[in-house]
Amino acid sequence: MARLTVSDLGEVELVEQILDKLSVPNSDVQIGPGDDAAVLGIGGSVVLTTDSQHEGTHYFAEWIAPEVLGRRAIAVNASDLGAMGARPRGFLVALALPTSTELDWVISLAEGLREGAERFGASILGGDVAAVADRVSINVTALGEIEKNTEPVERGGAAEGTWCFVTGWPGRSGAARQMFKTGYKPSAAFEACIDAFLDPRPPVTFGGCVASQGLVGAMIDISDGLAVDLERICLASGVGARLDAEMLVADTVLVDAAAELNIDPIKLVLGGGEDYELLCSVADGKAQTFRALAAETGVEVRAVGRFVAADEGITFVRAGHAETILPDGWDHFA
Amino acid sequence: MARLTVSDLGEVELVEQILDKLSVPNSDVQIGPGDDAAVLGIGGSVVLTTDSQHEGTHYFAEWIAPEVLGRRAIAVNASDLGAMGARPRGFLVALALPTSTELDWVISLAEGLREGAERFGASILGGDVAAVADRVSINVTALGEIEKNTEPVERGGAAEGTWCFVTGWPGRSGAARQMFKTGYKPSAAFEACIDAFLDPRPPVTFGGCVASQGLVGAMIDISDGLAVDLERICLASGVGARLDAEMLVADTVLVDAAAELNIDPIKLVLGGGEDYELLCSVADGKAQTFRALAAETGVEVRAVGRFVAADEGITFVRAGHAETILPDGWDHFA
Repeated sequence: MARLTVSDLGEVELVEQILDKLSVPNSDVQIGPGDDAAVLGIGGSVVLTTDSQHEGTHYFAEWIAPEVLGRRAIAVNASDLGAMGARPRGFLVALALPTSTELDWVISLAEGLREGAERFGASILGGDVAAVADRVSINVTALGEIEKNTEPVERGGAAEGTWCFVTGWPGRSGAARQMFKTGYKPSAAFEACIDAFLDPRPPVTFGGCVASQGLVGAMIDISDGLAVDLERICLASGVGARLDAEMLVADTVLVDAAAELNIDPIKLVLGGGEDYELLCSVADGKAQTFRALAAETGVEVRAVGRFVAADEGITFVRAGHAETILPDGWDHFA
Repeated sequence: MARLTVSDLGEVELVEQILDKLSVPNSDVQIGPGDDAAVLGIGGSVVLTTDSQHEGTHYFAEWIAPEVLGRRAIAVNASDLGAMGARPRGFLVALALPTSTELDWVISLAEGLREGAERFGASILGGDVAAVADRVSINVTALGEIEKNTEPVERGGAAEGTWCFVTGWPGRSGAARQMFKTGYKPSAAFEACIDAFLDPRPPVTFGGCVASQGLVGAMIDISDGLAVDLERICLASGVGARLDAEMLVADTVLVDAAAELNIDPIKLVLGGGEDYELLCSVADGKAQTFRALAAETGVEVRAVGRFVAADEGITFVRAGHAETILPDGWDHFA
């Protein structure tokens, strides 16, 4: 028997099936899915961000299972909240679905969205579904909260002489994307890279903690590529940066994957993109607390260099030579 | 010379060109576009809703100029805020653009988005752009605020015996959509219908006022069609409704357009859809104040019937005969 598609159900029943897979909103959500809009009480400041996953641009259907895609669509938005030091409170999801989309696929996607929100202690607040001719797209808007006495962490607060820290394993997502393009070669390194790419786990709680404890000057999520996002911090802060090539590639998984791809691993770290990790400036006197908090919360952090005077530019040092870092991050349109 | 397209610019420059067309956010916006997320202070409750405009589903490019499309994308979201009694505070916009999209088109769209937000005293808080293969889509998330001592207006508050009021001119959008399908015939009636369809002006401020003054029991925006949204209110409130056919079609513009289309005008009113207007329940003792407030704010309102006991069903009365209203509103997927 042919599987049900979204055209077999109609909008009302489709939405009911999706709502059925979402969890009950947290008790501080006054009105959840099902009315014209969602309502929730907020004590401090509201933080908002939006990001989409378009089939054919951000992913291909054969790469990713729908529940993983759902988690990913949530995670990439939560990552931006974490970079502001905000706690996720809820997500809105707007789905564009070809009418031939199988219901089972949509249900699995909805389960992934719920799991994704639950990872951050938040819920799906509402959304929208529409039929389209060609390809799936999933737009998510994330709403976060910053407590009353905490300032959001902006990009312009990196001071000369502070450490440049990154979380996680930048470059792995880029390696996975490259591998998908050139054909899958099974290996342990690739498996780890694929997991980082498809099912990212951004350090959102950690971002909120370092913000509320005042441990970072500037913070950004490096989803557009470390080089691009580092340049953004440097321009906004009026500083340069000098990174250490050895520290940038201190990841045996990445080095192995890069070797199999025959690519310089530093290229993947700087320009690979889609690493839902944080880059931040940390003053000398706060680095120890920063590292301790990371260890306590299970977040990998590495000092990859220092912010320096603006006229020193943005460079990395390899084998004693400084090389300029060009902002060749991931650009959809170029 | 060929016009610039989005692929000529790259993402960074494209975003700069778009930001250039957006207005400076209001002073209560702590961080506007350009960081990982936007931040704004909120005193009461946060209200959130999202809605998309997909080329080929919601509109065709030859129907609508980009600046009108931008205003429309904002208005359809603001309408949902108004239906909750919320004041718009800001909008996030996620654009999916084929790389061949002309820059001029995108700039005009951005101007329309700004104008749209300004109509409601709000601003664009941020967004996202992505390249896609096929068609434009515009997802908007609206954030509104409900003041501390005001309750959001839900769908379940319509009491038996109260008036059923609608704002504006339901049916005109449906007439315009029908006309686009069957080929344009210039007439004054169609011009008014096309304007209602393409460039809706939802009574958002009015929605906030009637909510804060406690004038309505239940309220909904009738964008999915009056019949569907009336049924939603009746089911949520445990009531029925008896509407008056004469009052429903008391709009000479609609009657003229329906005659040219050879359609029963009441079908357009009940099932046409995309009317970004309000349907609400108003108690006898509050109807005079409700009408006075509408007159003062320049909003057209009509009492089209009464909410009745649930076992009387949902009907309209024409020439002395009651006919059942079926929820045959606008469904994307069926």
